[in-house]
Amino acid sequence: MSELKGYKGKIRDFLTQNKVEVGNLVKITSELTYSGILMPRYESGDESHIVLKLKSGYNIGIEFDKIEKIEKVGEGQSIVESTQTIEKNENLPKILLLSTGGTIASKVDYRTGAVTPALSASELYEAVPEIAKIANVDAEVLFSEYSENLQPEHWKEIAKKLDSVAKSDYAGIIIAHGTDTMHYTSSFLSFALSGFPIPIALVGSQRSSDRPSSDAALNLIAATKFLTESKTNGIYVIMHNDSNDDTIACHKGTRVRKNHTSKRGAFETVGDNPAFIVSEDKILKNMNDSFFKGEKYEPKLDLDSKIALVKYHPGYDPSQIKNLIDSGFNAIIFEGTGLGHVGNTMYDAIKDAKEKGLFLGMTSQCIDGRVSMTVYDSGRDLLELGIVPLENMTPETALVKAMWACGNSSNAEEIKELMLRNIASEF
Amino acid sequence: MSELKGYKGKIRDFLTQNKVEVGNLVKITSELTYSGILMPRYESGDESHIVLKLKSGYNIGIEFDKIEKIEKVGEGQSIVESTQTIEKNENLPKILLLSTGGTIASKVDYRTGAVTPALSASELYEAVPEIAKIANVDAEVLFSEYSENLQPEHWKEIAKKLDSVAKSDYAGIIIAHGTDTMHYTSSFLSFALSGFPIPIALVGSQRSSDRPSSDAALNLIAATKFLTESKTNGIYVIMHNDSNDDTIACHKGTRVRKNHTSKRGAFETVGDNPAFIVSEDKILKNMNDSFFKGEKYEPKLDLDSKIALVKYHPGYDPSQIKNLIDSGFNAIIFEGTGLGHVGNTMYDAIKDAKEKGLFLGMTSQCIDGRVSMTVYDSGRDLLELGIVPLENMTPETALVKAMWACGNSSNAEEIKELMLRNIASEF
Repeated sequence: MSELKGYKGKIRDFLTQNKVEVGNLVKITSELTYSGILMPRYESGDESHIVLKLKSGYNIGIEFDKIEKIEKVGEGQSIVESTQTIEKNENLPKILLLSTGGTIASKVDYRTGAVTPALSASELYEAVPEIAKIANVDAEVLFSEYSENLQPEHWKEIAKKLDSVAKSDYAGIIIAHGTDTMHYTSSFLSFALSGFPIPIALVGSQRSSDRPSSDAALNLIAATKFLTESKTNGIYVIMHNDSNDDTIACHKGTRVRKNHTSKRGAFETVGDNPAFIVSEDKILKNMNDSFFKGEKYEPKLDLDSKIALVKYHPGYDPSQIKNLIDSGFNAIIFEGTGLGHVGNTMYDAIKDAKEKGLFLGMTSQCIDGRVSMTVYDSGRDLLELGIVPLENMTPETALVKAMWACGNSSNAEEIKELMLRNIASEF
Repeated sequence: MSELKGYKGKIRDFLTQNKVEVGNLVKITSELTYSGILMPRYESGDESHIVLKLKSGYNIGIEFDKIEKIEKVGEGQSIVESTQTIEKNENLPKILLLSTGGTIASKVDYRTGAVTPALSASELYEAVPEIAKIANVDAEVLFSEYSENLQPEHWKEIAKKLDSVAKSDYAGIIIAHGTDTMHYTSSFLSFALSGFPIPIALVGSQRSSDRPSSDAALNLIAATKFLTESKTNGIYVIMHNDSNDDTIACHKGTRVRKNHTSKRGAFETVGDNPAFIVSEDKILKNMNDSFFKGEKYEPKLDLDSKIALVKYHPGYDPSQIKNLIDSGFNAIIFEGTGLGHVGNTMYDAIKDAKEKGLFLGMTSQCIDGRVSMTVYDSGRDLLELGIVPLENMTPETALVKAMWACGNSSNAEEIKELMLRNIASEF
């Protein structure tokens, strides 16, 4: 491999002049001083940063234009392109890593500099050697999709795979997942696998590791720590708590939402603190309740994807509801305004939908807070029309829950009962 | 009128025994001690609170069961049911108050105890006497609708009314408005009335004044102060900044969102601080830019309501896009996932929509952050299909802007240009 893999133009010239190569331990003087291993760049990476792997295992990108000096201070580790054999320590707990794709799986392989679409166990060890000190990892690639391309059928496939290892000696399971729809997947798994005997962590990364400060490694390390040490069960999304690296948040799979397009602490538990916080030394528990109300593991893996999410707004054309009825939809989750309202122009269409037997649930586009449909006339009208208020469930979770409820029952009363029963801390 | 208007049962008995009447200055000993004027109750009010108007002009409800003692400490102001004549002070600036309905307009009339659907100038003076010290108010009722029932036609009517007073001696205009869709209305007015010569404040209240701690009075007082003192223009939503009464926030009309169903500080400026903060003594400016980029007032009051907001989610049925095309929609604003993505199952439908000439814009359901469609293949695919990334515009503002742009132009290039031009700090 090239000694300056991925670096081009003036950065490459600068590195050559200073006689440093990828894999060397270097010291860079910029606004701050950094020491670490010079990492290769991706071909797709931007061309204005030099990437260092710090002692913490964390990659940072340093803006080239601000660099005053680079010095080689040691040979460092050599960058091995071939698969390393990691010796397993049989005293450590075992975890299973399932990869579904996404930034975390495609870019975390920052040692070789290649953009690989999936993460093998050995690649994971290479990329995040800290994990080998916490657990032995079995890894399996389920698929390699960005999460915006995952569909309910993929959720089912993940759930089936998980169900097949419910009785195993794994301490926990990590699912590497794109962040775009991670909270939809975590909701489905929370309902489908209610009572699953071991903890499951969906882990993603917001920044690919060829950009300044990837969050992939720290999220994976925290998830491994959490699964092996927290003595809990439940399905969690594990991501940076905020923009710094001190705390990683474990969010309940049904209460979490991606609330920022790009920042590392993009995921938030809506209306509450994250269930757990992993900091370097300890795991803090904020969660009061037990994640799964039902103790018994009773998988219900089916789903019905003929469920619509309707965000009401002024000017919403009620004939769109008629289209949903005609297209055979079985439920509508409304994202109403405020406490759970839609305009009175919608009443006739809603009445039609109710008469055709659709399940109609109400959430709020405010996202935070809870619907309360008895405060104003508008809400009371909608209750009379048969809309079911879904408390403080997020619209996304309510949609997924309706897919799951309608997939596992065709009885209207039972569907309503399932929607209102608190199955995985969704309320 | 009854001396205990609105109070019933055991509360009425308690007040009678203690010889206090509505309008008296009383001291109540509960968990804390409160002094204020005993206020009448609404007929629709709950029956477990006694309402006091504090010296600050602010109403609070005190839970009856926790009250240890009530004492009359003075006659206080007498409660006048008939319209009071307020002497105008010709040295004060003039503001216009337009009422559209909503909690603020229907319940703020807490002196008379009646639930009136609209707010007259004299009722306003009675309800919030502090305003008379800041400005002379002309009031007009436009309509009396909860804002979930307001449609784009109502926005147009408001805009026309405002346009008719663009050349007047008002220092500013208050629009009393329900909170559910206040941010949609403020967006429309920001685009339609770009460059409006005087400031406009949409003001609502989250808690009706028959409930503990209404926010109506303080929001109205702050808005009056802001309009007469801030020397700015632009269209703002003025509401509590958080749960306490010290600060009232003035949000830019295009950047604001109702992010909580019930709390008083429900409105937030997405991704930034509010443009202004009104505290008791001063008005703090946070806004860097000028609200309206264009200096010249050029009203464009038309709109096209055949615009759809499509929130993408796993399992979204692409045939819904076909329905929109067939139903004659002229634009689709996508609420994509993450940086602005939709699943690849949507590509064919999007291609169809583009071929039929619909404007296609992308926002993010993350709400915070900005779309960035060049980072991943998915985004680049969508760019190639002709979707226009709308930066950090909120989905709601993008929807309203598309209604406005399509209403004021039928030329695809011009619509795109309008959508991407920063007209009222929407970017």
